[in-house]
Amino acid sequence: MHETAMILLSVFVIFVAAQVGAEIAQRLKLPGVVGEIVAGCLIGPSMLGWLKTEQIAQGTPLDVLSEVGVVLLLFAVGLETRLDDLKKVGRSAFLVGVLGVIVPFVLGTLWAHAEGFDWTKSLFVAAAFVATSAGITARVLQELGALQRIESRVILGAAVIDDILAMLLLGVVTSLQAGGGVQVGALVLVLAQATGFVAIIGWVGTRVARRKGHWIERPVNPLSPLTITLALCLGLAFLSTEFGLAAIIGAFLAGMIASETRKREELEHQTQPLLAFLTPFFFVITGAKIDVGVFASGTALWMLLVVTFIAVISKLAGGFLGAMSLGRRGATIVGVGMVPRGEVGVVIASLGLAGGVFSNEIYAVIVAMSLLTSVITPPVLAALLRRDREENRDREENVGTP
Amino acid sequence: MHETAMILLSVFVIFVAAQVGAEIAQRLKLPGVVGEIVAGCLIGPSMLGWLKTEQIAQGTPLDVLSEVGVVLLLFAVGLETRLDDLKKVGRSAFLVGVLGVIVPFVLGTLWAHAEGFDWTKSLFVAAAFVATSAGITARVLQELGALQRIESRVILGAAVIDDILAMLLLGVVTSLQAGGGVQVGALVLVLAQATGFVAIIGWVGTRVARRKGHWIERPVNPLSPLTITLALCLGLAFLSTEFGLAAIIGAFLAGMIASETRKREELEHQTQPLLAFLTPFFFVITGAKIDVGVFASGTALWMLLVVTFIAVISKLAGGFLGAMSLGRRGATIVGVGMVPRGEVGVVIASLGLAGGVFSNEIYAVIVAMSLLTSVITPPVLAALLRRDREENRDREENVGTP
Repeated sequence: MHETAMILLSVFVIFVAAQVGAEIAQRLKLPGVVGEIVAGCLIGPSMLGWLKTEQIAQGTPLDVLSEVGVVLLLFAVGLETRLDDLKKVGRSAFLVGVLGVIVPFVLGTLWAHAEGFDWTKSLFVAAAFVATSAGITARVLQELGALQRIESRVILGAAVIDDILAMLLLGVVTSLQAGGGVQVGALVLVLAQATGFVAIIGWVGTRVARRKGHWIERPVNPLSPLTITLALCLGLAFLSTEFGLAAIIGAFLAGMIASETRKREELEHQTQPLLAFLTPFFFVITGAKIDVGVFASGTALWMLLVVTFIAVISKLAGGFLGAMSLGRRGATIVGVGMVPRGEVGVVIASLGLAGGVFSNEIYAVIVAMSLLTSVITPPVLAALLRRDREENRDREENVGTP
Repeated sequence: MHETAMILLSVFVIFVAAQVGAEIAQRLKLPGVVGEIVAGCLIGPSMLGWLKTEQIAQGTPLDVLSEVGVVLLLFAVGLETRLDDLKKVGRSAFLVGVLGVIVPFVLGTLWAHAEGFDWTKSLFVAAAFVATSAGITARVLQELGALQRIESRVILGAAVIDDILAMLLLGVVTSLQAGGGVQVGALVLVLAQATGFVAIIGWVGTRVARRKGHWIERPVNPLSPLTITLALCLGLAFLSTEFGLAAIIGAFLAGMIASETRKREELEHQTQPLLAFLTPFFFVITGAKIDVGVFASGTALWMLLVVTFIAVISKLAGGFLGAMSLGRRGATIVGVGMVPRGEVGVVIASLGLAGGVFSNEIYAVIVAMSLLTSVITPPVLAALLRRDREENRDREENVGTP
């Protein structure tokens, strides 16, 4: 009985730390997720020690709560993603998504290899440079009231493509890592397996959901649309691990499938309390895993600056090049909007740590980089959008007066 | 990574089993919770073995998920309970609640002692006979469209008082069990400590919530009323274990406090998805802990029949005696309505099993009894209410025609 009480205490401490951290961050005009990670770092083993290393190790109850939290988060992200929207955003979004993945991936690989990683591990490290956080970007644009701008639509569309590419990439690098060296045959097999799983589940699933989606309303339980899609989420999360992909990929696909049913809005609404309760465990435990001690050394701090610089520049360049058709200013807004890394980068770093690919130092650097990019972007994006709005108003006034 | 995938698979299996079980039960006009327990029993170690004993032991990730689920369930029950409603239902509900606890507790203690338990353990066993499931009763009355009847209000009011008394009793017996023999001094201290905690938290908490309840809306996060009250729930759940009470008592108090804020309905709404996702773990794992093997022996089966008989008769008698002022038929309806045992009885049995007070046999018997009473009640209650409605209609027609 005492053991359960102790876990309950940790659950309480984590949850409260997350709320306080998110609140402080939001009052400082930063995304709440930044506050949750920082709070986790603060109460974690390397600082206050309210959470012990053995409490947050893999397979512990707190770790499982955090895993369930991130699975639900990606389910919710999938729920906001429709296959049709992916098609509509068209060429610009596709280019931004693809270039926004390729440039950071290439620069990240080169940097990691220069740091002394072998090529396979370098690809894994670079994968953590790739993914833009659709959640953070969307939340920032929403707070700025800029969701209807053409740049916003391109950013959101690209973020989705970027997410899928990052997930594919993650699947590829994890399998490569597990399998050993880079063999073209294995690479093709891994790629075929990962794309096959994603494409078949995504394509067949959304078609079935569109035609037979009303079936989720047939059970007696009025909450059946939620429970059935959650069951799908858990099932595909497990299944995707069987295909060598991360659990979150299956959860994302389940969300995308669920978004094709007519209960989509109800589901989005109902997942809010689930996310509010469970995702904090993921971000706080993510933060708690950062070994702050490593930044005591000048080398690690220097590495953080270099990594953050590469992460910002490479994403900005990829986004800018992809969105050239929107003009220089539009392309800059898109590029900046793509900079924040978030959930997915942190997830990849966690997998890297758990799989023994990342040292504590590189893990801490990658997580801190994700955090820094999320911190840097909002004010810059806000300034850019504000300047653009003012100049547009001036231009309209000049057109209006003569 | 493999370990996490395996836990994810168990989470998926448990969740799907719960949904299928609940659906079948509801189609058979039984409460969904019956189906979830039976499903757990079926996939548990003693039958299909899809869940292993070591996976559902105390302190495992699945056990913690189930603990979090039951904490949230009692939070939600508290949320539907207002201090004022407790006062309004008045004398009848109070009498039904008190007698509905005393009669089963006394008969239960006598039976357990006759079965060879020492007096302290007998009190613990009897505590599991006591609590009516407010959830099951309310769900049955709602399904029958009878929530506005005077008997329904008495039943619901009494169920709440009954719940609180059962929780107090649980606190008392757990502390006694932990402390050893029956000492009047210890008994008084335990009682004072338990009632003091419940009274002070309940009284002060609800008053603060009434006056300062709008504070929960002050954070930036639009979901702050939910997150703050959930934090309160987790905090009080832990704190009540420090006072020797079960975690669910603190959760219940947190719900009752939250129900005094103006966000009550929003909170009730938002807890639905949380319950839908997390409580199945509690009921399925509860069922999985039933060792079906024990019923292979005639003795255990006979014991189940005797225990169920005592549980039904004692609750019926207590409820009937308390509700005499409603007339014979009204009192019968109230008595029958009080019969279903549910969550709380099962929780006490789980604590008894975890604390080593209950053998596998008596645990299986108590859980099966809770299940049986929940299965027996709905059809009987429906028949009684239907007959009463028809006779009232006949009487009204006779009054109307002359």
